[in-house]
Amino acid sequence: MPRYALLVAYDGAPFVGWQRQVNGLSVQQVLEEAAAPLNGGVTPQTVASGRTDAGVHAEGQVVQVDLSLDLPPERLREALNTRSRPHPVSVLSVARAPEDWSARFSARGRAYRYRILNRRPRPALEIGRVWHVPQPLDAAAMHEAAQRLLGRHDFSAFRAASCQAKDALRTLDTLDVVRDGELVVVWTAARSFLHHQVRNLVGTLAEVGLGRRPVSWPRAVLDGRDRTKAGQTAPPDGLTFLRAEYPDPLDWC
Amino acid sequence: MPRYALLVAYDGAPFVGWQRQVNGLSVQQVLEEAAAPLNGGVTPQTVASGRTDAGVHAEGQVVQVDLSLDLPPERLREALNTRSRPHPVSVLSVARAPEDWSARFSARGRAYRYRILNRRPRPALEIGRVWHVPQPLDAAAMHEAAQRLLGRHDFSAFRAASCQAKDALRTLDTLDVVRDGELVVVWTAARSFLHHQVRNLVGTLAEVGLGRRPVSWPRAVLDGRDRTKAGQTAPPDGLTFLRAEYPDPLDWC
Repeated sequence: MPRYALLVAYDGAPFVGWQRQVNGLSVQQVLEEAAAPLNGGVTPQTVASGRTDAGVHAEGQVVQVDLSLDLPPERLREALNTRSRPHPVSVLSVARAPEDWSARFSARGRAYRYRILNRRPRPALEIGRVWHVPQPLDAAAMHEAAQRLLGRHDFSAFRAASCQAKDALRTLDTLDVVRDGELVVVWTAARSFLHHQVRNLVGTLAEVGLGRRPVSWPRAVLDGRDRTKAGQTAPPDGLTFLRAEYPDPLDWC
Repeated sequence: MPRYALLVAYDGAPFVGWQRQVNGLSVQQVLEEAAAPLNGGVTPQTVASGRTDAGVHAEGQVVQVDLSLDLPPERLREALNTRSRPHPVSVLSVARAPEDWSARFSARGRAYRYRILNRRPRPALEIGRVWHVPQPLDAAAMHEAAQRLLGRHDFSAFRAASCQAKDALRTLDTLDVVRDGELVVVWTAARSFLHHQVRNLVGTLAEVGLGRRPVSWPRAVLDGRDRTKAGQTAPPDGLTFLRAEYPDPLDWC
């Protein structure tokens, strides 16, 4: 069976998350049901590079699927986009992938963006796409605190209680905090992330940005390895999965 | 009664448009009902600088309202934003305005942006915010055609049948078409616009962008003054009211 890689964008708001769940519609279910007619009517199984939570968006999620049909990538993209209507899920590109390629395990890097709307008036056009923080944030202080978290550490303090990873050792490559007008944008990249890691890092950095904690505090939280000492889990709305990187680039249509 | 100017952003998707209508919720109704407790419980009347249609968004709509209470602008902004929840309407700023100031009749300029998502895959995160045109558009040809429409003309060919303006003479100051990656963005400014004028101009320019009509065609349509000869009315989703300009700048909070 040919293996395909799908580059997928979605609005996370109406979904229970990437992963199939009994309590509602997932992005995975939308894509698998759209692909079933291309797989002899049998619903195929998909694997994503990053399993985003409910409300988290994607601009470049990478998804793996094996189908019985051998299709030109453009035709598969068109078929999936026709069949996934009217859900806010779009297959941007398709590539044929080697049999031993895994969207999840072959990925060598993942990148996310987190957007905070930092102004007094509440969001209107930005509803569901930002975390609204009405008090002024010091983005430079947040950035300085963030730089002290880079590198290989035990990120137990920033993992969800529900996190299923065997250990919490991760290497954080990028954690930049940049002000862009009324937005404070956090850019982060790593080989992989723990469950809720980005949202817990953002919630912790926000305490520094609000002036409630010193620039040194997030590093002290990291070193303490105690989740109950970190800041709040920032809401999913502001988070977007941007891309996954693979050692052998795929030939996207 | 003090007169206030409100700078308002909204997502047009859930509304029947700016103006009150019997068949559904309008932005005007949301703001007027939010303001009623600040006007002795009496629902005040608002006037907008541009009466946007259903589905059309605003980043900087200017709205006029007279209230019985004399409030600091910041307090009025906070009160309206609290009371207009959970609708996607946000009062960004408030100014005290002179008694003879009119959001509609004092405006000397209005600016709109129209966004076309010009790629094969359908929108996901951009749903409701763009017009999706899957065939390649020649933005440079659209821009060239647009320049021939600038200046003072009878825009009868680009006005809606329902347009209530006494005449169709308008002066188009800006009509720029710019490609920005997968987006083709139309920027336009004029003292005032006719009903559906921007959407009819965009629909007509798109015919040129698709190569179905020559660059000279939109000007020929203008000169013909016949609405039935122009392109389609582009959908409201891509249109955003950006700002209104006044000869005496307001003192926004």
